[in-house]
Amino acid sequence: MPFVYRRRVQFAETDLAGFVHFSWHFRYMEEAEHALWRAAGLTIARAGENVGWPRVSAAFDYRAPLYFEDEFEVRVVLASVRRTTLEWTHAIWRDETLIGEGRMTTIAVDKSPGAPMKAKDVPGDIVEQLKAAAG
Amino acid sequence: MPFVYRRRVQFAETDLAGFVHFSWHFRYMEEAEHALWRAAGLTIARAGENVGWPRVSAAFDYRAPLYFEDEFEVRVVLASVRRTTLEWTHAIWRDETLIGEGRMTTIAVDKSPGAPMKAKDVPGDIVEQLKAAAG
Amino acid sequence: MPFVYRRRVQFAETDLAGFVHFSWHFRYMEEAEHALWRAAGLTIARAGENVGWPRVSAAFDYRAPLYFEDEFEVRVVLASVRRTTLEWTHAIWRDETLIGEGRMTTIAVDKSPGAPMKAKDVPGDIVEQLKAAAG
Amino acid sequence: MPFVYRRRVQFAETDLAGFVHFSWHFRYMEEAEHALWRAAGLTIARAGENVGWPRVSAAFDYRAPLYFEDEFEVRVVLASVRRTTLEWTHAIWRDETLIGEGRMTTIAVDKSPGAPMKAKDVPGDIVEQLKAAAG
Repeated sequence: MPFVYRRRVQFAETDLAGFVHFSWHFRYMEEAEHALWRAAGLTIARAGENVGWPRVSAAFDYRAPLYFEDEFEVRVVLASVRRTTLEWTHAIWRDETLIGEGRMTTIAVDKSPGAPMKAKDVPGDIVEQLKAAAG
Repeated sequence: MPFVYRRRVQFAETDLAGFVHFSWHFRYMEEAEHALWRAAGLTIARAGENVGWPRVSAAFDYRAPLYFEDEFEVRVVLASVRRTTLEWTHAIWRDETLIGEGRMTTIAVDKSPGAPMKAKDVPGDIVEQLKAAAG
Repeated sequence: MPFVYRRRVQFAETDLAGFVHFSWHFRYMEEAEHALWRAAGLTIARAGENVGWPRVSAAFDYRAPLYFEDEFEVRVVLASVRRTTLEWTHAIWRDETLIGEGRMTTIAVDKSPGAPMKAKDVPGDIVEQLKAAAG
Repeated sequence: MPFVYRRRVQFAETDLAGFVHFSWHFRYMEEAEHALWRAAGLTIARAGENVGWPRVSAAFDYRAPLYFEDEFEVRVVLASVRRTTLEWTHAIWRDETLIGEGRMTTIAVDKSPGAPMKAKDVPGDIVEQLKAAAG
């Protein structure tokens, strides 16, 4: 069962072609992912924690345009968990219309101030909580 | 030979993690692509023309973070031309550091007002001019 | 009675200083204003209509920072109506904390394709509907 | 003598109305201000320094639209210096056309990690350097 995040297209998200600029789909996916973390009782930015989650890769395939004021949903699945990375898959739908599909991989890193980022193991308890929320 | 577009990271492009938000790399790629069109004597938004260039797919693999005020370059290649689509590949570099690599496919569409978008053949003269610039 | 629009801060809206970039407050105000139009049974972008609503001025005074994942509300009032312009005032609150106050003036213009924008009278029925929604 | 920053309008900065979204003018002003800091041999985000520069207020009056690929300039003046604040005025021009005028006030604050932001005196040497660059 995917986690479902609902959203409406805002004016500033469109461009002169008359529909949503393609870069916004990546933000929509991220918003959905962070909403899933919250649904799991977590936040990606817990103060005092020294783990960060930068992107390793992000991709989206576009099927249909989204227009101003369209209501849509992002369906997120935690598709795979490896030692240091999480892979998410996303589908954006407006009613029965598939807007497109995406996937993003994030990596767990140490974020000690001043030090370079270094991959670290994904904390096991976080995975359990995310899976419970994103089925 | 790739086309080279130079740019500096702006403050609003960073996020609380302290470096550039991953969605901006897609805008950097687009800025570079549009600069290439200009270098070819073209513009992607010629008034009065009824061809549009929406994205079919976009992807980026991240290798290293970009920081505020970093100067970087985007190297663009017109990697392949099919009947209705153009595929671009991009590499972002800050000096000798590879920031990441991306690819984007755009499709030529009719944009008659009111009608749904419909794929059309890529105009041949445009391909010649783009290749001359991004050769 | 102001119209109230609720929202949560998203990751991409923060910058390296650790809180929301100041340019976002203008988008928050606009999102609230457009939600008010919808609450009034209207949309600022009605297809086929030849009236547009560009900004004449926009201003915001900042009192306190907004942080990632903060829930906040924008309270909008249609403060004054002149022959060709609407003036909106906005206050952003996070619980009992005033984040800041803004104001924006929009002007009604003809948007006949190809012609320069020209001020036109604010349609009277729109004002009635907006006032009913924004008290 | 104002400091002059040159820029071109990018595609993602436009909206469905066909010209630059009004929120971008605030980013253009900030980009110009940060370029001025660099011209003064400074950066607004010097690592290891515990002074930050959040906005106290920002305003813009719009005169004419900016379109995709327009080249324009932002002319910045350090209009006044008070004990804890700097006031900047900005004018955006495309050739002989005034796009609009803005002003922004920033306040110097302590940014000791974990502590609330507190106003502090503007460092005197910074003012000298900024004035030398922005006349």
